Amino acid sequence: METIIEHINVMGSFVFAISGALIAMRKKLDPFGVLIVAFVTAVGGGTVRDMLLSKRDVFWLFDTTIIYVILTGACIAMLFKDKLRFFDKPLFFYDAVGLGLFTITGVQIGIDASLAPMICILLGTITGVFGGVIRDIIVNEIPVIFKKEIYATISIAGGAVYLILVRLDVQNPYLQIIPILGIIIARIIAVKYNISLPTIYKKDHD
Amino acid sequence: METIIEHINVMGSFVFAISGALIAMRKKLDPFGVLIVAFVTAVGGGTVRDMLLSKRDVFWLFDTTIIYVILTGACIAMLFKDKLRFFDKPLFFYDAVGLGLFTITGVQIGIDASLAPMICILLGTITGVFGGVIRDIIVNEIPVIFKKEIYATISIAGGAVYLILVRLDVQNPYLQIIPILGIIIARIIAVKYNISLPTIYKKDHD
Amino acid sequence: METIIEHINVMGSFVFAISGALIAMRKKLDPFGVLIVAFVTAVGGGTVRDMLLSKRDVFWLFDTTIIYVILTGACIAMLFKDKLRFFDKPLFFYDAVGLGLFTITGVQIGIDASLAPMICILLGTITGVFGGVIRDIIVNEIPVIFKKEIYATISIAGGAVYLILVRLDVQNPYLQIIPILGIIIARIIAVKYNISLPTIYKKDHD
Repeated sequence: METIIEHINVMGSFVFAISGALIAMRKKLDPFGVLIVAFVTAVGGGTVRDMLLSKRDVFWLFDTTIIYVILTGACIAMLFKDKLRFFDKPLFFYDAVGLGLFTITGVQIGIDASLAPMICILLGTITGVFGGVIRDIIVNEIPVIFKKEIYATISIAGGAVYLILVRLDVQNPYLQIIPILGIIIARIIAVKYNISLPTIYKKDHD
Repeated sequence: METIIEHINVMGSFVFAISGALIAMRKKLDPFGVLIVAFVTAVGGGTVRDMLLSKRDVFWLFDTTIIYVILTGACIAMLFKDKLRFFDKPLFFYDAVGLGLFTITGVQIGIDASLAPMICILLGTITGVFGGVIRDIIVNEIPVIFKKEIYATISIAGGAVYLILVRLDVQNPYLQIIPILGIIIARIIAVKYNISLPTIYKKDHD
Repeated sequence: METIIEHINVMGSFVFAISGALIAMRKKLDPFGVLIVAFVTAVGGGTVRDMLLSKRDVFWLFDTTIIYVILTGACIAMLFKDKLRFFDKPLFFYDAVGLGLFTITGVQIGIDASLAPMICILLGTITGVFGGVIRDIIVNEIPVIFKKEIYATISIAGGAVYLILVRLDVQNPYLQIIPILGIIIARIIAVKYNISLPTIYKKDHD
């Protein structure tokens, strides 16, 4: 289990490093600025999560693999920046994958620390969402969670699904694959069909 | 004592959740965005304080009550958003109450950790002030501590008063009520009469 | 060793408090706002570093000396604000000195915690860079690390030099003086001659 979560964390760091590098290049930062934004995006969510848990060391302090993975992701993004367009919005795609992967690692770490279900889901959302939020604050974009399409809601729902699958004793790798793919697909649908939460404001000219 | 501080913390979370929700609705965020800003505003100051103290777990990790209280505060703000205007500036009012309540909890936690008086006051100010600062940074307003009327100064003075009352062995509930009310009233007076610190700049056309 | 690092930390806090106060006065903050920005600038980098290390208490929690040093630095900046111009850009100068001093303390703390060399350098850069980054975010300037001239790159190089000197068993005080002066001088040269990293973007009209 430990190892599966470890692998998911490495993959999440990789895709979030790419997403951070992409947005940094859009802002024309120099190569070093691109590396910094890639690093912060990749480790931001997990770092906040680990700082909240007083007994956990921040995950990348004792694990240089993650640092190399992030460097690799950022360099790939810089070298192949015109070739990363599997989708017409590559930033959005890597971000969605990272959201799915990191949400699950956060929930699992909450379970390992015997926290209440609601707090586990919250930790999952913090892990999944904060890297992108810090990335957007640093480069002065509107944080992705405040954009119109649902984002944190999907992370919360995905975390809840994972928690239920854990209770139902679903086996690896379905236990992880179902909620991760669920989050990624839900996010793609939300952006494609422009799905947002119902408004609480009266229509007014503002 | 533990329990009194606990109650004050719950009340502070409630009013700060309302203040966060109010400012989020002013920015027309969707219901989920409102919840996030309410949550961050309510737990921000205490979270920073608890992360600074390496021996303390972040207070809301093991306490789902706080989460429900914040959800309740945010929902009340959304449902009754036109009816919260006891004062003509409701955001400012809830913020002042939260500042008073949280400052005291921060100072008390510093005392419990046997920190120096000056550091206790600093922890109180961080607890009282940071929720509002993070709220304002997230929604792109000028942080409340940098607005013209005195704000952090009042938190510091209130923290010092609490520390003196503790030394003088003043009994519950006066021990808490005096500095809390003092901070709230001082803040109302400061805004009403536009009280600010003396300037250190020469009058110049800038 | 402990004591040398302690002294360097005090000096770094002093110069960063001045740099924070200078930028706060440029933004015409009131005296209390100047104190807050000075404090955050001086302790920001070390605080993030200490929060990352779950076994370390944040350095200023048990050390009121630092608080007095910061207060002194901020007051000197307020009283003599027109006389701090040894260089024609005083903010830049104090910032460069702080970068040099704090980078070394961060690397040393990483060594003391037996972290991998790469992580030690990263801790040094975080310690040296984050105070200035938080300062710039608070007062709404472009963070210093994203400006055109090399900045974090110098901190990383200086941290690597310090690590090599430690391996070579160079004695105090040269062990510290060489990388600190190296960082300060490199930063002055970078700004004076406008040295930046090579661009990764094709020249285009953007």
